[in-house]
Amino acid sequence: MSTITILGAGVMGSAMVLPFVDRGMTVRLVGTDLDGAIVDSVRDTGLHPRLNITLPKSVETYQSADLHEALVGADLILLGVASAGVDWAIARLDAALKTPTPIVMITKGLKPDSAGLLALPDVVAEALEHRLGFRVPVAAIAGPCIAGELAARRPTGTVIVSRDLALAARLCQMFETDYYHPRPSFDMMGAEICAAFKNFFAIAVGWAHGRMDVMAETQNKARNNNAAAILFDQAIGELMHLVKAHGGSSESVWGMPGVGDLYVTCQAGRNSRLGNHMGRGLSYAEVKQGPMKDDTIEGAELGRAVATCLEMLAISGKLNRHKLPLTFALLKALTDGSVFDPPWRDFART
Amino acid sequence: MSTITILGAGVMGSAMVLPFVDRGMTVRLVGTDLDGAIVDSVRDTGLHPRLNITLPKSVETYQSADLHEALVGADLILLGVASAGVDWAIARLDAALKTPTPIVMITKGLKPDSAGLLALPDVVAEALEHRLGFRVPVAAIAGPCIAGELAARRPTGTVIVSRDLALAARLCQMFETDYYHPRPSFDMMGAEICAAFKNFFAIAVGWAHGRMDVMAETQNKARNNNAAAILFDQAIGELMHLVKAHGGSSESVWGMPGVGDLYVTCQAGRNSRLGNHMGRGLSYAEVKQGPMKDDTIEGAELGRAVATCLEMLAISGKLNRHKLPLTFALLKALTDGSVFDPPWRDFART
Repeated sequence: MSTITILGAGVMGSAMVLPFVDRGMTVRLVGTDLDGAIVDSVRDTGLHPRLNITLPKSVETYQSADLHEALVGADLILLGVASAGVDWAIARLDAALKTPTPIVMITKGLKPDSAGLLALPDVVAEALEHRLGFRVPVAAIAGPCIAGELAARRPTGTVIVSRDLALAARLCQMFETDYYHPRPSFDMMGAEICAAFKNFFAIAVGWAHGRMDVMAETQNKARNNNAAAILFDQAIGELMHLVKAHGGSSESVWGMPGVGDLYVTCQAGRNSRLGNHMGRGLSYAEVKQGPMKDDTIEGAELGRAVATCLEMLAISGKLNRHKLPLTFALLKALTDGSVFDPPWRDFART
Repeated sequence: MSTITILGAGVMGSAMVLPFVDRGMTVRLVGTDLDGAIVDSVRDTGLHPRLNITLPKSVETYQSADLHEALVGADLILLGVASAGVDWAIARLDAALKTPTPIVMITKGLKPDSAGLLALPDVVAEALEHRLGFRVPVAAIAGPCIAGELAARRPTGTVIVSRDLALAARLCQMFETDYYHPRPSFDMMGAEICAAFKNFFAIAVGWAHGRMDVMAETQNKARNNNAAAILFDQAIGELMHLVKAHGGSSESVWGMPGVGDLYVTCQAGRNSRLGNHMGRGLSYAEVKQGPMKDDTIEGAELGRAVATCLEMLAISGKLNRHKLPLTFALLKALTDGSVFDPPWRDFART
């Protein structure tokens, strides 16, 4: 029997409660400073208000202030804060962690660096080692997982990735249920680049579907799926280049972190929705000032955060601009206010 | 100015009329014995009744009996008959072809052979050489192309594949328009295995979407997209094994013939529809006797045609059964009347 402490009571961290409880683990769910109302609701009624799922009664709930207590005797920490909350989480863990308890990250992200993109789990591992004076084993979860479906115990497959493959394999064995099927990988860069960029590329696929709404109706009422397929495939091809340029493995791209996660991300969600609006002719700024003004759109945030870094990597030759026509066209639209228009002919030449 | 003779007035052959005419070519559309009414309609009113598109007036129409005449001075032949009509087409071309006019095949297919699967374009090239005494250059078109969208001049990307890469590149230059974007490849086995099997695997992805209809509604009204994503991704992984085992290239799998075409095939169509029915609990036989009794379902036909061959290739060691759990589970359901149930745990172990 293991004890798992989940830091962050958002939808993905909270959905992971299900396989953990079903595997007989003791689960402690700790809210961030922003999760107070969620923790109260789960404690009082069991209902997670954002997942709209009643969590198992056995889940122990903690408010942010009680993290110390929630970590006593924990065998594993699941880090489920938003990317923007990672520095906060590192500071909190620094104060509370006394032993090298393994951390599994659900939080995804890439940090721009002069030598290339850095994977957030590596950044967290470095930062904690620097502060704590000992190395904490770190793993991350990638792949196609809509939290609400996992919380409803629908079939879900993921990849658990760690530079320590034996740790990843052990975690897969711990977490697997008859509906949750993780598989191990050691390709940290591949998994994290895919996890971050699939949101970005889902904007482009969403563009094709939104575009259809403003195209003149044809005699045969044609849809625009051929265009969506070009963009979906181009996204995979450009992920391949981004991952390989960072020393990652092609297997992550055509596997669950790339193809699988892009597929599920294109089915619905905010990134697709932004793409739909841009397909109808709005600029990114117009969407952000209008129909999606209250939404955080992860793929757009990622693009804007890494745009300068990718530009520099193309100049230095680490990235080949001609293999990334979709990436650079979409970055342009997300940063300079122009209307996105896919460079179809360039795609056929990559 | 080139003259192109299209043999077969089905939806895909006829849709190709658009880029050809827009590039200023002379286009001769020749029906098969089954296309008489289509040819009459195009000749009389311009309307292609199955595409529901009025073709350009400049298209010259021919009935099957006039193939000889349609081939006089042709620079290129586009072969667009159904797979089942290929032997008929070879016999007709044998009688009519006087020179090694290049053939571009839209007809897709794989022929089971004791050493593995054979690509239909290779089979056609061999058969014609045997009959004619000279080699006819052969190419094929693969990738995500819904005929009705191409006929409506919606953005479409494909791969033109030939063992003669220079021929493929020349054809791409000839065919490209501002909405039709072909790219060259020499990976015949990769392109043709993807082109055939994407229909087969679309059945599995359709299964996940149909399955949702019969699952108990959850508190949060969860969908079943995580499951669809596992199946989509597993399909790509198994295509990778099938293609590599036949000497094909991974680039075709994560490129337009694999990822791109599977994406578009999963958006709609008969293969998805069969999968939907099977997801709701019907066996293949029940679907074929009931809701789809009048439909030809290409993915199911392909599976049934190659099942014994794949079984033999697994026994001989050319294929690794453990890398093909989805393929063999779906083949079983298509051949022995059992209900399909995805072996989720096996997927995570491939």
